Amino acid sequence: MSRQGQKQNKITLLDVAKHANVSRATASLVVRKSPLVGAETRLRVEAAMHELGYVYNMGAARLRADRSHTIGVVVPNLTNPFFAELLGGMEASVDAAGLVMIIANSGDGPPRQATVLQRLREHGVDGIILCPAAGTTEELASQVERWKLPLVQALRHVTDELDYAGADYVAGIEEAVEYLVSLGHRTICFAVHGPIHSAYQERVQGFRDSMRRFGLQPELVIRVPDHLDQIAQQADALFAQGSAPTAVICFNDLVAHGLAAGFYDRGLKIGRDISLIGFDDVADAEAMRPRLTSVSTAPSEIGQKAAALLLDRIAQPTLAPRRWIIPTKLHIRNSCGPLSSS
Amino acid sequence: MSRQGQKQNKITLLDVAKHANVSRATASLVVRKSPLVGAETRLRVEAAMHELGYVYNMGAARLRADRSHTIGVVVPNLTNPFFAELLGGMEASVDAAGLVMIIANSGDGPPRQATVLQRLREHGVDGIILCPAAGTTEELASQVERWKLPLVQALRHVTDELDYAGADYVAGIEEAVEYLVSLGHRTICFAVHGPIHSAYQERVQGFRDSMRRFGLQPELVIRVPDHLDQIAQQADALFAQGSAPTAVICFNDLVAHGLAAGFYDRGLKIGRDISLIGFDDVADAEAMRPRLTSVSTAPSEIGQKAAALLLDRIAQPTLAPRRWIIPTKLHIRNSCGPLSSS
Repeated sequence: MSRQGQKQNKITLLDVAKHANVSRATASLVVRKSPLVGAETRLRVEAAMHELGYVYNMGAARLRADRSHTIGVVVPNLTNPFFAELLGGMEASVDAAGLVMIIANSGDGPPRQATVLQRLREHGVDGIILCPAAGTTEELASQVERWKLPLVQALRHVTDELDYAGADYVAGIEEAVEYLVSLGHRTICFAVHGPIHSAYQERVQGFRDSMRRFGLQPELVIRVPDHLDQIAQQADALFAQGSAPTAVICFNDLVAHGLAAGFYDRGLKIGRDISLIGFDDVADAEAMRPRLTSVSTAPSEIGQKAAALLLDRIAQPTLAPRRWIIPTKLHIRNSCGPLSSS
Repeated sequence: MSRQGQKQNKITLLDVAKHANVSRATASLVVRKSPLVGAETRLRVEAAMHELGYVYNMGAARLRADRSHTIGVVVPNLTNPFFAELLGGMEASVDAAGLVMIIANSGDGPPRQATVLQRLREHGVDGIILCPAAGTTEELASQVERWKLPLVQALRHVTDELDYAGADYVAGIEEAVEYLVSLGHRTICFAVHGPIHSAYQERVQGFRDSMRRFGLQPELVIRVPDHLDQIAQQADALFAQGSAPTAVICFNDLVAHGLAAGFYDRGLKIGRDISLIGFDDVADAEAMRPRLTSVSTAPSEIGQKAAALLLDRIAQPTLAPRRWIIPTKLHIRNSCGPLSSS
């Protein structure tokens, strides 16, 4: 261990405070450059720090149970533009609070998620926003309790014992079904992909329940590949089972983007030969031609709310768990048409 | 300060080693679960750790100048799918080396970049892959030297004194111009956006040089908005100056995606009325209709190479700086046609 390293371990902020004849709290304010400390006191504390060779240091600070002013965010992937918009919203709120955000990718699997959570914890983040990987169990709550680590679930939830920010996926899918039914569609497909988690189940259940409510067949839930460039090639799968759908609701805008390419290849005109609805309403929806009708889940707003929940949780660790469910809204553009014109 | 916190500060690995009557190096191997230590020694060291209440802890480990097995990656934004592919490539290599990657966003501005670099440093990352924010100066090299922090530049470079992994942007744009000229195009526009940095300058310079080499006007470099949904609305800007281009090379695939929507709105058929070439060849290029011809910069491969450079740099800090320039390749699909058919 270097000489400086030893000093860092040995000289505590309390030593500095005693030497400067102030409270530890005041010394801490000086170290953190708070404007609440008068110039004379600041100079005295800084002189004491210099004299004793005290080095303010994030690693040491964490060992003293101070805060690192860093938030960890764990997402299951980064290839869906949805996550870029979600992270943008979080970052705006985290920034405004004077904190820095660092991001880790769980690859949507619990083993890797365990590794990145452990690593973020070791690095002393003040709290974590987690979109739980598929397969995460409610055991997460007791683990977080043991760690005494503020943690907020975003987009997906595995336990009621931790804060959660997400969208009202069920209402979103209901509004999409209702809109298509109002246009005369009866054979509607839900094109899904990716691993199974709460947001997946809520959407599929919401689809089936709404279809039944209208007396329609709720069976057309069809899986497509995960990657954008492969979805187009699999568009035929939608027409392989029973009666061909005249309208397709997509699990997200990425699926809609891929299927739109597949429909183009089949010579189907979107909005005339087939109706298409996306989910999430990311920027790509507005840039598609025809423009994509999509269920807005306001990813940027979910990000902001998740950050707000976490900042509250850090400030007041004993708050009862809260849920913040953002209402969804069907953003109608040009990708759906009445059945009669099909 | 909690009682446990005090213990963590007070009990060092050296104390454990003395108590177990082994060297500090041996105790360190036990802590890191090395297979090089015999079972009897391991048990003795573990008993000493238990007895003294020693807690192995990343923060403390860093103060002892051990490694955190974490790599920091700083990118200028996350909204371009290019960065998701780049990060995917890095993660594969970083993972394979048994390390974890954490990501921070500089917002493409030096002040914020300084904050996130400082924070990653404080958290004790073993090294950093940085896509330097626009406006970063070559001063970066001496800063990194002072920090003794292994750092690799990716995609953009501001100094020759640090490692760099990027693509041969100049050759990429040359191949695109050459291809369009071979199809008979003479009035070619380069549609650019975003802040100015080395990768921007290399592309613009490459475009102007190639156009001049063919005796063509190199002036049609036109700026479009940053965000996907706004690019389409600004497609008219391409036709506002002098003679209307018959072909457009885009700064990246995001610009191509937005312009394709704008051309659709003007009733222009891509590949017939206007030729369009993207840059980067992300997954979206294959999913566009018509499929987008694009200059592949192999983002996933750049990510892998940047990670490899960093792992080498961590292992051998005194290596001379290296540059790894990935060759580009024009991926010809269906978005360009001969001029005669216009």
